[in-house]
Amino acid sequence: MKGWIVVAGLGPGAEALVTPEVSAILAAATDVIGYIPYVARVPDREGLVKHASDNRVELDRARHALELAASGRRVVVVSSGDPGVFAMASAVFEAMEAGPADWRELDLRVLPGITAMLAAAAAVGAPLGHDFCAINLSDNLKPLDLVLKRLRLAIEGDFAMGFYNPRSRSRPGQFDRVLEVLREGCEPERLVVLARAVSTPEQSVTVLPLADLRAEMVDMRTMVILGSSLTRRVGRFVYTPRSA
Amino acid sequence: MKGWIVVAGLGPGAEALVTPEVSAILAAATDVIGYIPYVARVPDREGLVKHASDNRVELDRARHALELAASGRRVVVVSSGDPGVFAMASAVFEAMEAGPADWRELDLRVLPGITAMLAAAAAVGAPLGHDFCAINLSDNLKPLDLVLKRLRLAIEGDFAMGFYNPRSRSRPGQFDRVLEVLREGCEPERLVVLARAVSTPEQSVTVLPLADLRAEMVDMRTMVILGSSLTRRVGRFVYTPRSA
Repeated sequence: MKGWIVVAGLGPGAEALVTPEVSAILAAATDVIGYIPYVARVPDREGLVKHASDNRVELDRARHALELAASGRRVVVVSSGDPGVFAMASAVFEAMEAGPADWRELDLRVLPGITAMLAAAAAVGAPLGHDFCAINLSDNLKPLDLVLKRLRLAIEGDFAMGFYNPRSRSRPGQFDRVLEVLREGCEPERLVVLARAVSTPEQSVTVLPLADLRAEMVDMRTMVILGSSLTRRVGRFVYTPRSA
Repeated sequence: MKGWIVVAGLGPGAEALVTPEVSAILAAATDVIGYIPYVARVPDREGLVKHASDNRVELDRARHALELAASGRRVVVVSSGDPGVFAMASAVFEAMEAGPADWRELDLRVLPGITAMLAAAAAVGAPLGHDFCAINLSDNLKPLDLVLKRLRLAIEGDFAMGFYNPRSRSRPGQFDRVLEVLREGCEPERLVVLARAVSTPEQSVTVLPLADLRAEMVDMRTMVILGSSLTRRVGRFVYTPRSA
């Protein structure tokens, strides 16, 4: 058996947002590997081995997946959202770079998915309707000062923004520093969208002005969208005009 | 009959990248409306009226769709990619804002899709693997100086970037000004990905250093991805590490 490895995005939660391409590859796999709740989304079937691991072990998981593929298994690494957006794809390439040379010759593909930022945007209208940035607020892998620098530059450029991993349990105070930077650079009426569990039955979406945003409204499962200076409401929707 | 309007993303081209949610809504529509090649992707069936229009009439098309829904039709506005990313969703909200008050009460939903930037990234690895910006290079609706200002700020922040609508037939010279700004701010080895017709049988993906990029390599159907300073090759792939 010739092994392969696919890094696949399951989308934000709803099965109706999983692409047929990803469903087909899951049906062809011998092994599925990923963070516990994502592996749980893949139905059991005979011949499929599931490898569920905890969060924060992305590199170990990536190495394990590459080893399995090199040994002849057909491996799908599952991510939520899109695997290339703050998810497993980069971890797999980091492991490949640090690993044995023959891993670079493996049959490897990345299959895109609906990332949380775009599902959250769609749920409320089109707040990312013109130029926008996606920023990971976590300082697990980069210094918080770099995060804050990027925020200041993105505000200066009047980008709309999507924030991933806004607030960790271990360092809840850092979102207050993010809030300070946003308040320095943006008017108090600037629109903020908080989207939690998008596309699932537990979905909640809140729209509020920046002045009302508090750190405790946000956790690691919240997608935060900050509008540009031109982002506005129309009816029950929020959108950014194409001229922004 | 109670009308509704859905703005739906068809993804970058492959049918395997259309979400089941979008396929289901197309099956329930009485009217499909959009740019000619996107409407052509929806199979004909009895009871379905197709309204195909030329590019650059987005607002007329949006008004037409809202009128149809207000009259009781079940309308799907089709976009390629994701409708909220440089596509039809913002145009529909602009038309809603300028139109009669009862349009704001319409049953309207936006359904996300796989946007070209993320499909292009997946095709080559994970070049958007950390903080990134999406910038529309067209100056149809905003001044070129604003585009260039955003480019300079995004380079200063060392974001990876996806560029939509990089080069128009009517103003081909403006991509040379974009190139000037990129060359001022980035080292000559900075990696660039040119992805055309991603996910279709005509897909072509080229990776080259910024120093080798020429305006004539790019047209309106090319998705351009510019790496961050840490974006690199591993094997035949391009990725940005999570620490970038």
